[in-house]
Amino acid sequence: MERALSARLRTVPTSTAETVLRALGVERFAINALRLLAGAEAIAGPARTLRFLPARADFVSPKGKLQRGLIDSLREGEILVIDALGTLDAAALGDMLAGRAKALGAAGVVVDGVVRDVAGLRAMGLTVHARGAYPTPSPGRLMPWECDVPIQCGGVLIFPGDYVIADLDGVVVVPAALAEEVARRGQAMNADDEISQRLLAEGRPLDQAYPLPPEAKAPPEAKAGA
Amino acid sequence: MERALSARLRTVPTSTAETVLRALGVERFAINALRLLAGAEAIAGPARTLRFLPARADFVSPKGKLQRGLIDSLREGEILVIDALGTLDAAALGDMLAGRAKALGAAGVVVDGVVRDVAGLRAMGLTVHARGAYPTPSPGRLMPWECDVPIQCGGVLIFPGDYVIADLDGVVVVPAALAEEVARRGQAMNADDEISQRLLAEGRPLDQAYPLPPEAKAPPEAKAGA
Amino acid sequence: MERALSARLRTVPTSTAETVLRALGVERFAINALRLLAGAEAIAGPARTLRFLPARADFVSPKGKLQRGLIDSLREGEILVIDALGTLDAAALGDMLAGRAKALGAAGVVVDGVVRDVAGLRAMGLTVHARGAYPTPSPGRLMPWECDVPIQCGGVLIFPGDYVIADLDGVVVVPAALAEEVARRGQAMNADDEISQRLLAEGRPLDQAYPLPPEAKAPPEAKAGA
Amino acid sequence: MERALSARLRTVPTSTAETVLRALGVERFAINALRLLAGAEAIAGPARTLRFLPARADFVSPKGKLQRGLIDSLREGEILVIDALGTLDAAALGDMLAGRAKALGAAGVVVDGVVRDVAGLRAMGLTVHARGAYPTPSPGRLMPWECDVPIQCGGVLIFPGDYVIADLDGVVVVPAALAEEVARRGQAMNADDEISQRLLAEGRPLDQAYPLPPEAKAPPEAKAGA
Amino acid sequence: MERALSARLRTVPTSTAETVLRALGVERFAINALRLLAGAEAIAGPARTLRFLPARADFVSPKGKLQRGLIDSLREGEILVIDALGTLDAAALGDMLAGRAKALGAAGVVVDGVVRDVAGLRAMGLTVHARGAYPTPSPGRLMPWECDVPIQCGGVLIFPGDYVIADLDGVVVVPAALAEEVARRGQAMNADDEISQRLLAEGRPLDQAYPLPPEAKAPPEAKAGA
Amino acid sequence: MERALSARLRTVPTSTAETVLRALGVERFAINALRLLAGAEAIAGPARTLRFLPARADFVSPKGKLQRGLIDSLREGEILVIDALGTLDAAALGDMLAGRAKALGAAGVVVDGVVRDVAGLRAMGLTVHARGAYPTPSPGRLMPWECDVPIQCGGVLIFPGDYVIADLDGVVVVPAALAEEVARRGQAMNADDEISQRLLAEGRPLDQAYPLPPEAKAPPEAKAGA
Repeated sequence: MERALSARLRTVPTSTAETVLRALGVERFAINALRLLAGAEAIAGPARTLRFLPARADFVSPKGKLQRGLIDSLREGEILVIDALGTLDAAALGDMLAGRAKALGAAGVVVDGVVRDVAGLRAMGLTVHARGAYPTPSPGRLMPWECDVPIQCGGVLIFPGDYVIADLDGVVVVPAALAEEVARRGQAMNADDEISQRLLAEGRPLDQAYPLPPEAKAPPEAKAGA
Repeated sequence: MERALSARLRTVPTSTAETVLRALGVERFAINALRLLAGAEAIAGPARTLRFLPARADFVSPKGKLQRGLIDSLREGEILVIDALGTLDAAALGDMLAGRAKALGAAGVVVDGVVRDVAGLRAMGLTVHARGAYPTPSPGRLMPWECDVPIQCGGVLIFPGDYVIADLDGVVVVPAALAEEVARRGQAMNADDEISQRLLAEGRPLDQAYPLPPEAKAPPEAKAGA
Repeated sequence: MERALSARLRTVPTSTAETVLRALGVERFAINALRLLAGAEAIAGPARTLRFLPARADFVSPKGKLQRGLIDSLREGEILVIDALGTLDAAALGDMLAGRAKALGAAGVVVDGVVRDVAGLRAMGLTVHARGAYPTPSPGRLMPWECDVPIQCGGVLIFPGDYVIADLDGVVVVPAALAEEVARRGQAMNADDEISQRLLAEGRPLDQAYPLPPEAKAPPEAKAGA
Repeated sequence: MERALSARLRTVPTSTAETVLRALGVERFAINALRLLAGAEAIAGPARTLRFLPARADFVSPKGKLQRGLIDSLREGEILVIDALGTLDAAALGDMLAGRAKALGAAGVVVDGVVRDVAGLRAMGLTVHARGAYPTPSPGRLMPWECDVPIQCGGVLIFPGDYVIADLDGVVVVPAALAEEVARRGQAMNADDEISQRLLAEGRPLDQAYPLPPEAKAPPEAKAGA
Repeated sequence: MERALSARLRTVPTSTAETVLRALGVERFAINALRLLAGAEAIAGPARTLRFLPARADFVSPKGKLQRGLIDSLREGEILVIDALGTLDAAALGDMLAGRAKALGAAGVVVDGVVRDVAGLRAMGLTVHARGAYPTPSPGRLMPWECDVPIQCGGVLIFPGDYVIADLDGVVVVPAALAEEVARRGQAMNADDEISQRLLAEGRPLDQAYPLPPEAKAPPEAKAGA
Repeated sequence: MERALSARLRTVPTSTAETVLRALGVERFAINALRLLAGAEAIAGPARTLRFLPARADFVSPKGKLQRGLIDSLREGEILVIDALGTLDAAALGDMLAGRAKALGAAGVVVDGVVRDVAGLRAMGLTVHARGAYPTPSPGRLMPWECDVPIQCGGVLIFPGDYVIADLDGVVVVPAALAEEVARRGQAMNADDEISQRLLAEGRPLDQAYPLPPEAKAPPEAKAGA
C-alpha cells in the first residue's frame, strides 16, 4: 500500500500538495534553499531520517557507523532526509553511500547541507536535493548522531514515515496521516488542472478556465482513476 | 513595427545592449539576481508591468483580479515584468496564469520574486526569469496592486513600453526611446563581433581581432542587413 | 610531461583529490561559491594567474593591457585563474578574450567574480567556473593589476604552476609539488572505487564494498595503468 | 486624541503589541532587518509614507521635490515610513531633512534602506530605524515617487495613518482601526507583566508568575489607568 | 569548585581561551554570528542545553512545558545554551523566562536564534548573546524538544556541563575536561599579556614586548594568583 | 602639513567628503560593510596598507614578520588599512599589535576582515573599523603578503598616502591629490551646514534653509577659518 501511495503522490506536484495541505490546516511544510542536483524531476516516498551534530576533536563518537547502518537498512521507495545543519563545507553524502541507497531502491535523498561526487550521483540516477556540492566529506566536521527520529530539514519538521514529495519547485513534507488525503485531492486537482490547461491552450480567458467552472470539471471517475 | 523591433533586439545579446546603453549615457539598467528557469535562451519585447504589495489579514483588497485581468490583456510578443518585492516564499506566477500568457503569445515573464510549477512552465515553453521557485502561491502573502505603471524590478526602473532583453547573462531594460538605436548599433556590433570571433578562431592575437581593426570591419550593408 | 600529468589528474575527481591532499597534510585548497557555467564537466591543468584591483576614476592604470597580454600568452592545457575580488556587477571575462584562450588551447577559466556572454562561452566550449554572469564588462569597475603571481581565488591560495582540478563538486588547487602524488594515489583510488561501485550495484552491504576489503582491492598493475 | 493614543501605544512594547495583534487575527506586521541608529528606545505614532523608485539617467523625474514637500508637511508626533527598496548604497535621509522633521516634532523615521549623517541624527535626537548608514545620498540612484499612499516597508504593508511602534525588538505596524484596542489590551498586559516580573524577582517559579494566575492579576482600575 | 572555576574562566578572554584550546588540539569551538544584546561584557559558566524543533500545525507536542521546566531548574552561575535552529522570526526567549533565569542566578543565555523584550533584558541585567531580536514569540513556529543533551549552537558541538565563555569577541565552548587547564594556562597568559601591554604602552617595539621575552615573563606565583 | 591636513579632514563628515569627491569626478571610494568596533566616532589620516593572502599548510611564508614590521613603522596620525580578504573566521588584528599601533600614535585601523580582543581595543581607545570580531587569530588561515602597496579594501582601491576619513556613516578614501581640496570645500560646506541646521531648528521650511539661499551663506572668512 505504501508503494501505491508513493506512486500516486509522485503524480502530485508540490504546488498542488501545498494547496491541499494548506486547505487541511498544515503550514510550514515546504523546505526551501535546496536544489535538485541529480536524478528525477519528481519523486515521492516515505521518509527515513538522519541527524548530524558538529564534530569536535576531543570527542570520539560511539556512533560513527550510524549513517552506514541506516543506509544499509533503506527499503525500496524510501527517501532519506538528512539534517546536516545547513553545513556548506562538509559533504553529508558521497557516491559510495549513495550507491548503496540506489542499489536498495531508495527513491532519493534530501539533504540540509551539501553532497559530493555529483557526477557519480548523476551517473547512477539517484535523485538528490541539497544546498550544493563540496568535495570535502563530513568526518572531522560533522558526525552522525541519531536516525529514525523527528528532525528538522530546511526549517521544516519531519517524522520518520511522513511522505516527501520533491520536484523542481522544492521539497514538501506530507504528514503520514494526511498522505492519503493529499493523494486523493491532489489527483482530483490534477484532472481539473489538465482540463484548465487545455482550455487555456485553446485560447479561453482565465475566468473560463481557472478555476474550472463547475460544469467543466472532470467527472469523479476520471479523478478517481487519475 | 514593434514586432520587427523586438525581433532585431532579440539578436542583440544583453552584453552588447549594455555596451550601447552605456555609450548612450544610461546606467543602472541591468537586473541582477534572477535566473532563467524555463523557456528560450534569448527573448526581447516590450514590457507590461505589475506591482505587488504585501498582503495583510485585516485588509481585503478590491484589486484581487488585477493580475488576471492584466494577463488576459497581454499581446503577442510582450514581456510581463513583475515587482514581487523579492519575496522568496510566495510564488507570483504559476502554470495557469502562465498558460494564459503563453496562449496569448507573450514572449516571457520576468519576476523579482519566485514562481511555481517550473515543470509545467518548461513543458509549455514560456520563458521565465525569476529568483527561484517555491510551491506556495502568493494569495495571503502578496496582493496585486497596480499594473501598467512604472515599477522597480531587481533594483532597475522600468516603464510600460520599455523593451526588455533577457538571456543567459541576465535581464536588461532598454528605454523605449533608445530601443531603435540599441537595435541598430547592436546589430552592427554583432556583425563585427562575428568577424572578431572568426579571426580569433583562426589564431589571431587579440590586438588583430578585437576590437576589430578598421580595415576588417563588416561593410555597412552587412550591418544594416544583419 | 605536464600534459600527461594534466590528463591523469583530469581522471581524478575533486572529491578524491581532496582525500589525497588531506592525507598529505594540506588544508584550505577547495574553492567554494563558484559554479560551472560552460564547458566540460571535468578539467585539470596548470594554473596561470591574474589579479584585479578596483578601478577609480582619478587613476589611469598603466596596466590596461595586462589581461590581454596574459591571455595571448596562454599555452595549451593551461587554466586561467582570476581573482576578480568576488565582484558581482563587473564581468572579468567575455567571449572575445575567451575566444582567444580557446584558440590557444586553454583548458578553462576559474573566476572569483562573474563573466559575460555565457551563450557564446557555451558555443565555443570553453570551460568556465565563476560566481555567475552579468552583462556589464569590468573596465571602469575593475582593472587588471598583476599576473603570474600568487593570488587568492575563493579564499584559496594559488601559485602559478599549481594544478587545478575542476568538476561538478567544485574547484581544487593541487600544489605543484604534490601533483604527481595526487595523480598516483588518486588513480589508485579510482580503481578501487570502481570495484566498490560494482559491488554495491551487485547488492553488497557497505561494509563489504566500501572501503574495499584488502582482498577485493585492484591489483597494483590495474592501478598503475588506470 | 491621536496624541493621547500615541502616548499610550508608546508604553506598549512591540512584543506585547505583537501578542495583541496576533490575537486579533493580524499577521505579517513586524518589520525585520532594521536597526535603531539614533534617538529614543521606544516611539509610537501615526505613519506618513514615502516611496522611492530607482533613478535612471534618461528620465528626469517631475517629482524631485516630493520628499522635501512631504517632510515640510509632517505634524507633531508623526512617524515617516520610507520604502527605499532596501537599497544599501544610497541614503534616503540625511541630517538636513531629518533636522526639518525634528523641528516639526516628528516622532521618528523608519527606512527600508540606509541613511547618512548618523552623528548628526544622534545629536539632534531624532529616532531613526534603518538598515544601516552610507555616506552617499540618494539622488542619481533613487528618486521619490509617491507619498501618503500604501507602501511596503521591510515586507510589511502600511497605510498612511496606521500606527507604528518601534523599540529595541523591531518595528510593528498597527492598523489604524485596531490601534485603540492594541493600546487598551497592551496596557492591561503591561500591568499584569509588571506583577509577573515582581513575582519572578521574588523567586516564584514560572507557573506561579507567568502567565499570571487569575487571583494575581492587576485590578481593572490599575489596567485602565496604566 | 564549579563556581571558582567559572570565576577564573571569566577572567580569560575568549581570544586567550582560543589559543589554549588550539594548543590542546581542539578545533571548531568558537560560535559565530551571535551578538551581545544585553548584560555583562564577559561571562563564564557551565552550560545547560535546550533544543528546539520547528512546529507543525498537525502535531501537538507533549513537551510544551519543557523550556519552562528547564529554566525553573537553572542553578546559580549556569549558562543556558539554546539551539533555536538559527530562526530569525520567532523569539526563543522573552523577558519572563529570562526574569526567572535571572532570579535563579543564571550567568547568561546563548541563543542560536533571536530573543524579544531586549529593553527588559537590559533592565534586568541578564547577559544574552543571540542573532538579534524579533517581537514574535516561538509558539507556533518552534517547539522545545529536548534539554540537557548534546546540541549544536552556531555550528559548534556543546555538551551539558561544558563551560561557556562569552565576551565581545564571541562565544567559546570549553570542553568540561579541559576547563581547568584552560583556566590555568589562560590566567598565566593574562599575567604575561598584562606585562606585554605595559611594555607596549612604554613604547617598546613588538619584538621586545610580544611574545614576552623569557626574562620578562610574570613569575609563577603571579600567574597562579592571577 | 600632513597633520594639519588630517586635523582639517577630521572635521569633514564622510557624507560631506562624498559630496565633494563626487563633484570632483571620483566614484567608488566609500567602503561598505564595516562597523565601528572601538575608539573615536571620527578619524582622518594618511593610509598605510597591508595585504593578506590565504595561508596553506604546504607553504611556509618568508614574510611572517611583515605585519609586525609594518606596525612598528607606523607614524603618528596614520591609519592602517588592511585587506584581509573579507575573512570572517581569522582575526587580522589583536590587542598586542593594536597596542603597539596605539603607542606610536596611529589614528586607527580599517580592516576588510575581523579583529579580536575588542574589549582590549576599547580600553586602549584605538579606533577600529572592521566586519566584526572573532576570537581566532590569523596565523594558519591568513598570511601577511605585502605592505605599502595599492590594495583593495571593501571593494575600494586605496594607495599608501591616500587619506582615510571614517565616521559613523562608514569609511571614505580620499585620493592624496584631492585631499587639500576636499578639506577646503568640506570645511566650507560645514560652515554652511551649520547655518542650515540653525535655520531648521528655528522652524524654517527646507527651501529657506537647505541648500542655503546665497544671502544666508557663511562669509568666506568663516569658511576659511572653519
